[in-house]
Amino acid sequence: MKSWIKMSYPEKFQGIGIVDTKDWTHPKRVTYEPKAFGPHDVDIEIECCGVCGSDIHTAASHWRELRDKMVVGHEIVGRIVKLGPECDSGLKIGDRVGVGAQSFSCLECDRCKENNEPYCPKFVSTYNRPYDDGYISQGGYASHVRLHEHFAIPVPDEIPSELAAPLMCGGITVFSPLLRNGCGPNKKLASSVLVVLGIWAYCLLRQVGAEVYAFSRTNSKREDSVNLGADHYIATMEEKDWEEKYYNTLDLVVVCASSLTEINFDKFVKVMKIGGTIISIAAPHKDQKLVLAPLGLLGVKIGNSGIGSVMEIKTMLDLVAKNNIKIWVETVPISEKGVTEVFERMEKGDVRYRFTLVDYDKEFK
Amino acid sequence: MKSWIKMSYPEKFQGIGIVDTKDWTHPKRVTYEPKAFGPHDVDIEIECCGVCGSDIHTAASHWRELRDKMVVGHEIVGRIVKLGPECDSGLKIGDRVGVGAQSFSCLECDRCKENNEPYCPKFVSTYNRPYDDGYISQGGYASHVRLHEHFAIPVPDEIPSELAAPLMCGGITVFSPLLRNGCGPNKKLASSVLVVLGIWAYCLLRQVGAEVYAFSRTNSKREDSVNLGADHYIATMEEKDWEEKYYNTLDLVVVCASSLTEINFDKFVKVMKIGGTIISIAAPHKDQKLVLAPLGLLGVKIGNSGIGSVMEIKTMLDLVAKNNIKIWVETVPISEKGVTEVFERMEKGDVRYRFTLVDYDKEFK
Repeated sequence: MKSWIKMSYPEKFQGIGIVDTKDWTHPKRVTYEPKAFGPHDVDIEIECCGVCGSDIHTAASHWRELRDKMVVGHEIVGRIVKLGPECDSGLKIGDRVGVGAQSFSCLECDRCKENNEPYCPKFVSTYNRPYDDGYISQGGYASHVRLHEHFAIPVPDEIPSELAAPLMCGGITVFSPLLRNGCGPNKKLASSVLVVLGIWAYCLLRQVGAEVYAFSRTNSKREDSVNLGADHYIATMEEKDWEEKYYNTLDLVVVCASSLTEINFDKFVKVMKIGGTIISIAAPHKDQKLVLAPLGLLGVKIGNSGIGSVMEIKTMLDLVAKNNIKIWVETVPISEKGVTEVFERMEKGDVRYRFTLVDYDKEFK
Repeated sequence: MKSWIKMSYPEKFQGIGIVDTKDWTHPKRVTYEPKAFGPHDVDIEIECCGVCGSDIHTAASHWRELRDKMVVGHEIVGRIVKLGPECDSGLKIGDRVGVGAQSFSCLECDRCKENNEPYCPKFVSTYNRPYDDGYISQGGYASHVRLHEHFAIPVPDEIPSELAAPLMCGGITVFSPLLRNGCGPNKKLASSVLVVLGIWAYCLLRQVGAEVYAFSRTNSKREDSVNLGADHYIATMEEKDWEEKYYNTLDLVVVCASSLTEINFDKFVKVMKIGGTIISIAAPHKDQKLVLAPLGLLGVKIGNSGIGSVMEIKTMLDLVAKNNIKIWVETVPISEKGVTEVFERMEKGDVRYRFTLVDYDKEFK
């Protein structure tokens, strides 16, 4: 079997994909054709891939019905094994690179030129999105990935691959709204830890000089939060009148909860300083709406943030490397069984705080 | 009658007030006691008062049921006739001052100290709000108003009273979100002109160096908008695909529409630049909610803004005086009949673009 698979590249990629949307927690080994190789494309032999909440949402059709069999995964680390003839970004064969949630944008529009590639109208996500030619992108629970060189970002030597992986989507998704909303010394900042994305990010938040207020529904994550760098911890379901105690305190709140309807925004508005910003990085279920009272945001702004730009990812990786920030990651060998395990445990919230699928060389070679 | 009224001050103030909430468009002459005179209070003999949409909303119980008879009006210009024994802000008897929508705050909390008096928990609006002692504040369709000296703001000599009046609430409500959201040269800025508040503000917007995009549902305000300083005019109901034409264009939108549910925020998000801000200064009906799609604000922020701070009002008045900005105002003599006229015409949208009630000396002396 190994030799057959090995021979499959470059014609075919191997992956662990969802083949039955009704039984999405039991993905299967799949073989599939990569996209047509463009002049600026690179092929990456994948070493490991983080498991992101988006993988679950996609696999489980939370956002929209999954169209076809699909290999998810967009926290990829691997090595360049092929360079397109017009590649000119400086990448070389053998370079270790990371890939996040985006694999293509036009790079010519105003948004791309302003380092806002995630907001380009021609945006293609790393999996489950059609390219112009109709090919549906496929992700990183796979032997290889093929994409535009711009989105293959060198990983500094200081960061181990399994720790770099979850930074590529989860990390930058927390970090981008910090960069864009004036986070820095003497700013007071909160991050909800209602889901796993938040808590491990405190070590990032501290690095930008903010005083970190961690909000969670219960006290179960208090110890970990403090160990990871939170200056304050507020259990919103267990602490009475917390919105009075922290009245007029926070400059920026990054909401990491997966459900927006579970957040009491009226209370969060109270703890904000005037001019403060609430950014939700949640990607809620397709049926959820955000409903706000008239004048409910008096003096305060709210917005959504998606992923970060390539420039922001580079800034974050530099920060992590220079400050030796260690993400708390649990590794699981990739296989049909391994992906089932991480999907089932993610569904139960049984992860502290990110999974990285590893041992790709054993599964795919 | 005149002598009786003249004698009423300082024990009693005279006003034109709503006495029957079911017949709010027919206010009557009323006599009422002023609030207890505090050591930092001033009495102002009113010269004129602008007519604000809030007056209508309050009189018509749009926001909440009107509790009792009420004198509205919070775009007041008049002269100081009495100073409290501890007044120390530099005001003198005879000074011409303006009063906006706020008559009290604690001046001691963090928000007050940061020039955010409108967001002080002890905020008292100029009418229809209880002071600590239970007295319900009364507004400027009246012979006099009594309030804390901090909220009596000197009006520069260059600005005629009837033009200064609508600046005190309508003007600052548009101007404050500009100041707070980075409006300035090379920024592209839109203001909805769905209601009267917006259009006359273009002359303000131009002064801060912004390129002004005026949005209205129809073309009926095109000529006036351009005359008042709009660089572009978009009739959203008459121009097809305007959201495509102006894609990725605007840094800041100030929504002046009175109804939030009539705004297609999905389209407005498209015309925003990434990182842009939509500020609604609307005070919608109590039953209205703002409902947003999940991720509907990707890359964009939205917030509400109320009135402006005293410092911001002073900044605005200086700007208006120095640049000789002329607001388009229609004056109407104050009387029972005059207030009925402006209420009825405001309800029909028949005002271009602000009313100021004048001739107070004839009605009240």
